[in-house]
Amino acid sequence: MILTKGLLTSAHNRASQAAVFDGEFTLTYQELHDRVSQLKGALRDCEIGKGDRIALLMLNDFRYLELFYAVTALGAIVVPLNVRLSIPEWTLILQDSEPKMVFISREFLPVVTILQSKVDSIRRFVLAEDRGEETGNTLPYEHLIQSHIREPLTYEGVEERDTAGLFYTGGTTGRPKGVMLSHRNLVSNAWHILLASGYDSNTHYLHAGPMFHLADGASTFAVTLVGGTHSHLRVFRPREFMQVVQRDRPNTVLLVPTMIHSLLQSLESSNYDLSSIQRILYGASPMPVEVLKKAFQMLPDVEFQQAYGMSEASPVLTTLAPKDHQVLGTDREGLLASCGKAITGVEMKIVDSERKEVPVGVVGEIAARGPNIMKGYWNMPDETDRVLQDGWYFTGDMARRDEENYYYIVDRKKDIIISGGENIYSVEVENVLYTHPDVLEAAVVGIPDQEWGERVLAVIVKREGSPLNEKKLIQFCRPSLAGYKVPKSVEFVTNLPKSGAGKILKRSLR
Amino acid sequence: MILTKGLLTSAHNRASQAAVFDGEFTLTYQELHDRVSQLKGALRDCEIGKGDRIALLMLNDFRYLELFYAVTALGAIVVPLNVRLSIPEWTLILQDSEPKMVFISREFLPVVTILQSKVDSIRRFVLAEDRGEETGNTLPYEHLIQSHIREPLTYEGVEERDTAGLFYTGGTTGRPKGVMLSHRNLVSNAWHILLASGYDSNTHYLHAGPMFHLADGASTFAVTLVGGTHSHLRVFRPREFMQVVQRDRPNTVLLVPTMIHSLLQSLESSNYDLSSIQRILYGASPMPVEVLKKAFQMLPDVEFQQAYGMSEASPVLTTLAPKDHQVLGTDREGLLASCGKAITGVEMKIVDSERKEVPVGVVGEIAARGPNIMKGYWNMPDETDRVLQDGWYFTGDMARRDEENYYYIVDRKKDIIISGGENIYSVEVENVLYTHPDVLEAAVVGIPDQEWGERVLAVIVKREGSPLNEKKLIQFCRPSLAGYKVPKSVEFVTNLPKSGAGKILKRSLR
Repeated sequence: MILTKGLLTSAHNRASQAAVFDGEFTLTYQELHDRVSQLKGALRDCEIGKGDRIALLMLNDFRYLELFYAVTALGAIVVPLNVRLSIPEWTLILQDSEPKMVFISREFLPVVTILQSKVDSIRRFVLAEDRGEETGNTLPYEHLIQSHIREPLTYEGVEERDTAGLFYTGGTTGRPKGVMLSHRNLVSNAWHILLASGYDSNTHYLHAGPMFHLADGASTFAVTLVGGTHSHLRVFRPREFMQVVQRDRPNTVLLVPTMIHSLLQSLESSNYDLSSIQRILYGASPMPVEVLKKAFQMLPDVEFQQAYGMSEASPVLTTLAPKDHQVLGTDREGLLASCGKAITGVEMKIVDSERKEVPVGVVGEIAARGPNIMKGYWNMPDETDRVLQDGWYFTGDMARRDEENYYYIVDRKKDIIISGGENIYSVEVENVLYTHPDVLEAAVVGIPDQEWGERVLAVIVKREGSPLNEKKLIQFCRPSLAGYKVPKSVEFVTNLPKSGAGKILKRSLR
Repeated sequence: MILTKGLLTSAHNRASQAAVFDGEFTLTYQELHDRVSQLKGALRDCEIGKGDRIALLMLNDFRYLELFYAVTALGAIVVPLNVRLSIPEWTLILQDSEPKMVFISREFLPVVTILQSKVDSIRRFVLAEDRGEETGNTLPYEHLIQSHIREPLTYEGVEERDTAGLFYTGGTTGRPKGVMLSHRNLVSNAWHILLASGYDSNTHYLHAGPMFHLADGASTFAVTLVGGTHSHLRVFRPREFMQVVQRDRPNTVLLVPTMIHSLLQSLESSNYDLSSIQRILYGASPMPVEVLKKAFQMLPDVEFQQAYGMSEASPVLTTLAPKDHQVLGTDREGLLASCGKAITGVEMKIVDSERKEVPVGVVGEIAARGPNIMKGYWNMPDETDRVLQDGWYFTGDMARRDEENYYYIVDRKKDIIISGGENIYSVEVENVLYTHPDVLEAAVVGIPDQEWGERVLAVIVKREGSPLNEKKLIQFCRPSLAGYKVPKSVEFVTNLPKSGAGKILKRSLR
């Protein structure tokens, strides 16, 4: 299936339903369809065609949604950029992907000149907002749309195997890798999400996480396919989030664990009306069980659902269903540490270092197969061959499964600490640290040690004014962890470095 | 996606859940998986391989489910036979499809010798039931299963474009056409149904309609994919249906209109507990609005959902959602005559005789496009080319759509009566006939007329003892129909001829 068909379906079946609802601003599915067809025509007039790349350096906005559909209906490829990167990082990605056009939010106007000078392929920048004058090389978005007539939206010559998006990953250090996702990859994942989450035309989804990231981006396609409504939060901050929820009354939202964490802290001192929220999906990084329990307590009427995955899987591999969260105080409470079961549509297994399947309970690498698995990395055939084999994708994530095939992530392969020959999974240690009431955020990494190879360092953000110190926290861990897993040292910081998607950057910590 | 993956997913995620529940008899998904892998191995030992055909001449039974999965995991092709056909009709289909093996229910033992003598390709018959001795050429099913060890179920060399099933249509007169459906066709339709119906692992589906027919068969794949439970009614009769519902307590069932009609008649004089039923899906032929209203009245706690389609579409094209049924007594009551909107995943349009799209309100032929549309007719390239063009399937069904893109079937192209140059849609006339309290079943056909070309004949089953006669019924129709649409003659019969799927056979009436 082509992405375009999702929009066509909703324009056909639900023409007058709200596709976009941002405060005063509304677009019906018919209007969204019309604007997308105009934008597509305008892009074609700019000589954008099949296989061309269009980069997006934008904060959340309904135009992100329009661009996804207009660009891909031409057979061209969207390249969503992480807005939190630095100029050298953007430069590297743009030089790698060679887009002809870049769509930017106003906030990024200051970097236009420098990016233009470094990336030869770029012919045009477009300022993606309501108004704006044509200045030098920067065209206003609404001029572009109005430059073309409305016509039925079509997708001539676009095949479901064609690449629809390049999603860059690992862009914070080292050479970024462009994950090539086809129409089929993205649409398959949308169907998987729809079945697992029960989204329907009543779903009103707030894009609170960044739209450039697939954890949120996937819902762009899923919500549109069933004719649900999109609302947008430009950038996530707890107060703005609560304001937009009170104003637009969405019922569904995806948040990464660090967002939930900061939201819970703000909730204590606010009284916004968040009663419209029926479901919070969370994922993109490990969820400390203590944070989850606090969320249950503070948002008792909300259903929680976890999704685990990565860009290479478009992105979802597993889901922990809402009913699996109703285990507090039962002998199944351990489920809360699980990332759930393989989402219907995806096959999963756990393999050893020789890629042979291992039995229940044994830790190994997660491998997955399905129509959502990427075509490969852009211009990196060797990297692609390293992770794709016989249709299986080898994730680099270490996990075990239980008798019922619930999966438990223990660590990223590269985050495993090896101390005195023993494997230490940082997630296990972090979960213990999070049970301390004064620990707000925790990250555990291995640092070089002459005697043991590596030793465990805990980096902690503590509650303001807490008397917690290194010695006390190490003592706190002892009853819950084997000696070699207990942190050997603790550093207190005021912030942990995070990626644009809110993941803690352990490489930066090391 | 390959059909096999649906079973593998449920065996992985829900190994201990009931896949089959028939009275005392239960199979978990693990057990179903194991039996299917054994059966597949045994078939391979019988030298069944990719592309070979296996015919099924069976009443409803969980072995139908097993065969669908075992045969297709080999890349072989199931050929489900309509159990209501005659020996010459079966012979024609078997000569056309050339199966190597035929699986039969005990009821069909008497025809083994004759079919064997007429169809050279058949090497083996298998008696698909609990026990049974090896007699001549007929092998017992359970011997076959036990002849092979359990092993992980695999699907080497099977591609999603491979044909998984040949579903014969139009087999009652003329040359039957084998609709070739690929793994992808059948799995796509399953996903479409899942999204539209909200089936999940709690779905407990009773196969009450015949499993050889895709109206029911499609649920075989959908229910398995989400790990729901299958129950089986060997042959539909109202009393047996009510007994099995009371015993197995399914919550979901698909019935064709004539089944609903006879069920409603039996309900009046029985007191079985049908309270487990939450949803009745109906389709496969036009649903008289009066029957639907009676069903609402007699089964007030049941949700109704309509599906419209045909084998060529695997089979669903449109669905009228449960909420669209909640219109009695409102100004939207006309929706009950609609077959609903295009199911998400399928594109639809209405075209004129030159296959150009027509506007809202204009009657034309329904065309549809999507991953569920058949590969073509088996060995009939000309017939295939006639109905498939540029990815679109031209259905031969005449319909109009309203402003919201609800579709209203007016007739089969070939059932339209042309009288004095005017088109008369038999469904419209039948709907009026059904509003008469003494009309139990009605079918309207055109018969040759020297003056008008064709004239309208109504064939009626009336309530026992009713004084209704031709003249009274014609008078009854006058206020509701234009003069040329009013039946010119009426014949009263005790039964209408029906296909195995319960469709009224208008060709036989003519």
